Amino acid sequence: MNKQILKIVKIGGNVINNDALLDSFLKDFSEVHGPKILVHGGGKKASEVSLAMGLESKMINGRRVTDEATVEVVTMVYAGLLNKKITSKLQKYGCNAMGLSGADANCIMAHKRIVKDVDYGFAGDIDAINDTIINVLLQNDVTPVFCAITHDKNGQLLNTNADTIASEVAIGMSKLYNTELNYVFELKGVLESIDDKNSVIKQIDSKKYDLLINEGIIADGMIPKLHNCFEALKKGVKKVKIGDVSLIKDKTKLYTTLSL
Amino acid sequence: MNKQILKIVKIGGNVINNDALLDSFLKDFSEVHGPKILVHGGGKKASEVSLAMGLESKMINGRRVTDEATVEVVTMVYAGLLNKKITSKLQKYGCNAMGLSGADANCIMAHKRIVKDVDYGFAGDIDAINDTIINVLLQNDVTPVFCAITHDKNGQLLNTNADTIASEVAIGMSKLYNTELNYVFELKGVLESIDDKNSVIKQIDSKKYDLLINEGIIADGMIPKLHNCFEALKKGVKKVKIGDVSLIKDKTKLYTTLSL
Repeated sequence: MNKQILKIVKIGGNVINNDALLDSFLKDFSEVHGPKILVHGGGKKASEVSLAMGLESKMINGRRVTDEATVEVVTMVYAGLLNKKITSKLQKYGCNAMGLSGADANCIMAHKRIVKDVDYGFAGDIDAINDTIINVLLQNDVTPVFCAITHDKNGQLLNTNADTIASEVAIGMSKLYNTELNYVFELKGVLESIDDKNSVIKQIDSKKYDLLINEGIIADGMIPKLHNCFEALKKGVKKVKIGDVSLIKDKTKLYTTLSL
Repeated sequence: MNKQILKIVKIGGNVINNDALLDSFLKDFSEVHGPKILVHGGGKKASEVSLAMGLESKMINGRRVTDEATVEVVTMVYAGLLNKKITSKLQKYGCNAMGLSGADANCIMAHKRIVKDVDYGFAGDIDAINDTIINVLLQNDVTPVFCAITHDKNGQLLNTNADTIASEVAIGMSKLYNTELNYVFELKGVLESIDDKNSVIKQIDSKKYDLLINEGIIADGMIPKLHNCFEALKKGVKKVKIGDVSLIKDKTKLYTTLSL
């Protein structure tokens, strides 16, 4: 059976924090043909609102610790402010966007992360995607816009990594579509040298991936990001690209493509 | 053609501000059979968050004046915190709720209120309901949960009266369904005497409505509320009931029914 292509695009904090960049990205995204899904992270806004409300943002290993007050703030900022800002702007550009959290129509079920060394509080690890309802939306020309909030189907909202949401949605939808996963972030791709913004490694397969880790070229935050991508490819996602905003409308040839 | 019954329920601040009452209401609502839609107001939380963020809530004639900072706060609180809290609790009780603002899939289009005597800022007056997509959701056993935020289809989110959202959604959906509108608030219905909580006027038709206004029995905030209801009846809504939470599952016979 010839499946339709479904594009899942994840944008990071650098796009969200910059109004002009976000606006031009959303214009480009609205012009992408065919079924598509947008996933967005939270950016600095959650920390700003926390600060304004006199709450302290607690981070361990670069990840937010989500106590009860914090899960309220991230729900406000991710599912409220940012999600509706993005949705209303996409509507302006003619894209029939629908902003969603994982709780909505039970789109993304998760469980509170099991405590091992670190207690991240109300952080969610994803169990399942509701491909049926997401497909209903896509087939009605609706573009789902997911924020980084899921739920446990027992009344608890959970702060969830947006990269993981993007890859799990792409994996879950690959039963019904040929899925293509795009990670849009501040760099032009995976770099050979962090000092040279144009030293993009254009192709990485799993063999090269191991090599790059051993050589220390892929390190730190890039390791879980790429690990996510290779997991997605192993579980049925057809294509993964990593790059900056110009990736979206093929305005550039400079980005990283991952393959098994 | 025999249309299906669609129940549209609006809950006010008194239900939202009380965790135990909200929880028991949501349990009851989840057990209502057939297609249904929930509409919720904002309650005190928006003022609390505004205060915590050092913003002043400005009210004129009992209505919030929505400046740019305030539209951010109400979007956070209504579309984020409250909408997702309600949605995740309904999911817990087995109701396949989907939290939405008017911007999502362009469900509710509005325009910024024209300034006459008072400039209410980013307050929305509704132009149209997207009955097609709302019907797609209902036919897929999804229960839309609308917060009091709409948009102008030009990138601007708008703070919008939840009573009006409920009546406009009921009117808009009455092409496809026999719609029944329920307003759930702090009283058992429209009261004969404000001092006697049980003096519910069980039936009000338009003739009696005029009479009750002339006699001063219906006054203040109840006038626009009831005006909304009669407009809904004139424009195709089949039934309007006003009462407290026990109305939902017919636990009481004490409520007000409106008819033309």
